[in-house]
Amino acid sequence: MSAQNAYTTGLDRNPANFVPLSPLSFLERAALVHPHLTSVVHETRRFTWGETYARCRRLASALSLRGLGKGDTVAAMLPNIPAMYEAHFGVPMIGAVLNTLNTRLDAEAIAFMLDHGEAKVILVDPELAATVEKALTLMKGKKPYVVDVADPAFTGGKVIGSVDYEDFIATGDPAFAWSLPADEWDALALNYTSGTTGNPKGVVYHHRGAYLNAVSNALAWSLGAHPVYLWTLPMFHCNGWCYPWTIAAMAGVNVCLRKVEAAKIFELIGSHGVTHMCGAPIVYNTLVNANDPRKSEPRAVMGMVAGASPPMAVIAGAENIGIRLTHVYGLTEVYGPAGVCSPQPEWAGRPLEERARLTRRQGVPYHLQQAMTVLDPETMQEVPHDGETMGEIMFRGNIVMRGYLKNPKATEEAFAGGWFHTGDLAVIDPDGYVLIRDRSKDIIISGGENISSIEVEDVLYKHPAVLVAAVVARPDPKWGETPCAFIELKDGASADEADIIAFCKQHLANFKVPKSVVFGPIPKTSTGKIQKFQLREQADSKAAIGG
Amino acid sequence: MSAQNAYTTGLDRNPANFVPLSPLSFLERAALVHPHLTSVVHETRRFTWGETYARCRRLASALSLRGLGKGDTVAAMLPNIPAMYEAHFGVPMIGAVLNTLNTRLDAEAIAFMLDHGEAKVILVDPELAATVEKALTLMKGKKPYVVDVADPAFTGGKVIGSVDYEDFIATGDPAFAWSLPADEWDALALNYTSGTTGNPKGVVYHHRGAYLNAVSNALAWSLGAHPVYLWTLPMFHCNGWCYPWTIAAMAGVNVCLRKVEAAKIFELIGSHGVTHMCGAPIVYNTLVNANDPRKSEPRAVMGMVAGASPPMAVIAGAENIGIRLTHVYGLTEVYGPAGVCSPQPEWAGRPLEERARLTRRQGVPYHLQQAMTVLDPETMQEVPHDGETMGEIMFRGNIVMRGYLKNPKATEEAFAGGWFHTGDLAVIDPDGYVLIRDRSKDIIISGGENISSIEVEDVLYKHPAVLVAAVVARPDPKWGETPCAFIELKDGASADEADIIAFCKQHLANFKVPKSVVFGPIPKTSTGKIQKFQLREQADSKAAIGG
Repeated sequence: MSAQNAYTTGLDRNPANFVPLSPLSFLERAALVHPHLTSVVHETRRFTWGETYARCRRLASALSLRGLGKGDTVAAMLPNIPAMYEAHFGVPMIGAVLNTLNTRLDAEAIAFMLDHGEAKVILVDPELAATVEKALTLMKGKKPYVVDVADPAFTGGKVIGSVDYEDFIATGDPAFAWSLPADEWDALALNYTSGTTGNPKGVVYHHRGAYLNAVSNALAWSLGAHPVYLWTLPMFHCNGWCYPWTIAAMAGVNVCLRKVEAAKIFELIGSHGVTHMCGAPIVYNTLVNANDPRKSEPRAVMGMVAGASPPMAVIAGAENIGIRLTHVYGLTEVYGPAGVCSPQPEWAGRPLEERARLTRRQGVPYHLQQAMTVLDPETMQEVPHDGETMGEIMFRGNIVMRGYLKNPKATEEAFAGGWFHTGDLAVIDPDGYVLIRDRSKDIIISGGENISSIEVEDVLYKHPAVLVAAVVARPDPKWGETPCAFIELKDGASADEADIIAFCKQHLANFKVPKSVVFGPIPKTSTGKIQKFQLREQADSKAAIGG
Repeated sequence: MSAQNAYTTGLDRNPANFVPLSPLSFLERAALVHPHLTSVVHETRRFTWGETYARCRRLASALSLRGLGKGDTVAAMLPNIPAMYEAHFGVPMIGAVLNTLNTRLDAEAIAFMLDHGEAKVILVDPELAATVEKALTLMKGKKPYVVDVADPAFTGGKVIGSVDYEDFIATGDPAFAWSLPADEWDALALNYTSGTTGNPKGVVYHHRGAYLNAVSNALAWSLGAHPVYLWTLPMFHCNGWCYPWTIAAMAGVNVCLRKVEAAKIFELIGSHGVTHMCGAPIVYNTLVNANDPRKSEPRAVMGMVAGASPPMAVIAGAENIGIRLTHVYGLTEVYGPAGVCSPQPEWAGRPLEERARLTRRQGVPYHLQQAMTVLDPETMQEVPHDGETMGEIMFRGNIVMRGYLKNPKATEEAFAGGWFHTGDLAVIDPDGYVLIRDRSKDIIISGGENISSIEVEDVLYKHPAVLVAAVVARPDPKWGETPCAFIELKDGASADEADIIAFCKQHLANFKVPKSVVFGPIPKTSTGKIQKFQLREQADSKAAIGG
């Protein structure tokens, strides 16, 4: 018998040595090892890991009693409240798929998702019930069974369903014999991308990927045991970047938050001893610019930031109020963060501004992601590490979606050449770190020169009067396109177009300086991403009328 | 199309979204992200992650040029030196299997392993070459190609091979195109158990399990980025509990150590700023009882301890010299540690002695191990959590070996009933933590009552003159068996049999008190495990001659 044959004989998988990877195992362990530690806290309600486990099993059992099982979709239109956390475990415990809905969407979009995902049950918060009620009337297919989730911390809204959540889970067995998925490749969650054109696409996550990214979060952040995690990031967004599962793995505390408000965030950080939080730059910007006396209280919070390249002012500003930012990068298709700007030990001694410049890059692959790099999408070759040659960021590894639900064409395109194509244009710096220059559709081409809208925005953020800035291309008969800046000013601050343009000229090559500046509120998605497609429409019409 | 079908259609594995789990990926990432940070340091030699990656690829390339490939075994008879670390990556890079040999074994045992594992190449340290040379003459099968690994930090020994390691890897390509295993279930390592009877059994590890346990190590220890890890634990022992791969995952520093000596360990902790180390209780006992002025220097080291239930005196003693111990539990068949005595936050405020009592338990499953519990081996039911009912510790999950090489009968027995049987007898405390009472063969049955040898040993360790204690059963015509104590005294301390027995009577029920006490050196394995089978033989002969 050759050694090669020896290693392939009599050494098979069996129930003792092979178990499908699933984030459900993290909850089971937290309940076994730390049953009396706090799992979830929401205003005056507080649960332990033992209780949360029992409630998730009740939810699984109740869904099972209604006839749901493997491959059935359960939708959730909920803010960051205990039921939303429990849905992340109770739903997949029966092999069902959790479809968390973006709470800012309108009824038309929700109706599309409920139809496309074929949701059999939907959990609804009273504050969001009116939208869901309308969506149900717009649906073409079979309507889901509606469960209202009353929140003692919220008054008002509507009750539209057949049963309240607490009564619903009371029908379930707290010792329900749930099971792991038969295959770790089985679907766990369905997340619709907030596509700016066409219908949203349904990104399908599997148990293996969620398990690995939940662990990656812990490694990227040196998370440690029992973090106190504040839910500033919506759980509907890429399943809260997989943090519902990470916090279970580390037996931490989930501090719920219905709404991102500076005063409430400062209050909860203080009262619960929050150690970690996540969010888009806008979340930190809100805190940094808040007019709140607690802003200057001492705190040591670790913040993860993503969703857009964080302006330097945000990174530095957060640090000044005791929030040390780790910059991660990803998108719905890669379970939220799948890249991280891993700090090098030598950065620690650098001045804050330089650290901010280094940190705002998208960085390197997440610990358990196989590869993240910048390829020329034509040749699929990596671009040189020169900080100049632009290509498209691509991912490969286990932290990549299964594909788009019922959309083989989009799936095939997204995976062309064996990599997931992000659509983000970037360079690789000489130290190997990736830096986004722009979304491919956000790049401005003026007189044949590429202008990175991000570069211009960074300059605008340095202007003392600017709160939020966004730059898009505006059609121009001479140059093809020119940069058009949209600006929200800080409370009580003032600046006009000439001031802004003069400021930019001090910091930018002439061709990069915005030719026009628009002041006023900037449209954002619920996760704080600026909706540039709307700004482009405004810029287009401004150009058309010669404004 | 039903939702169930929707999730099973058009969402398959492809090169973009599925990659086999392998610890080799950790090295690739460390070299990509932190190419200039120190990876391995051994006396005056120092390597970066970029260099270590290149050297591992050279090794893989050189082995490949010799015709080795998937399923071929490469043996290593090496102390904890850079080549040993490199073998943990370079060998599996070509799909070959690393068989690290216990450096304290005799030629007969080594010959058996080389024959049984069909090693095609062996790496040999000059200090260990004489044993290997003899083993080669004892082999029945085809002899391996011998590579000598000269160590500039060691003089003497023998050169017995065909080529030196540095010359060998110089034949390899530093940019060698290695590949991940085709299947994460493929064999990665072969580790022979130090069976006390019969032939050693060859435990086969796969890439998936090593990957997951390497990550589990980081989670159990809140390891963080860039730990400085001192190699007090032999890398030949369960592949150093998977730490070669953990340290790559966290881009830490591997501080090599040829030999466990208190003076050298204190020196390296100070000079390299060591943050973490692992070892059997004997390693910490050596430090605690060392006569070294540096003992009292301030330090903050995290120590992982396993290999035997650590006596309370060791846990408390280590803490007094700045080494905070985390107690883990496992055995070769579960990749080293696969259970951990996870500290509860509330323990922090307890007195040291009580913390030591809590910490010495085997605890709960490792973060990424599925289950570790105590079952009645007859009924396969979990024992009640009463701290009294004895059963056998069993494991289930991905951190369990594939099986024993060429030994289907032993494999089947080990996995009977869908669990891996450890042979360790234990109880479950009311808080769910497992506590070993004894190896099944170490339990003493006196007058029908079970006596835990560990309980008696714990009392003996409290005696101020005792350095090492071990208790085994001695045949007794009246009681069946009685406890027999073996004791090594501390330097300059004295005690006689009557002292010891009187001391035990103060702390133990009468039937548990040793009836005889033997003073002198106690035989230990290379990893510090006391060889009770030898003591039992001594006790037997003592009984036979009426001693």
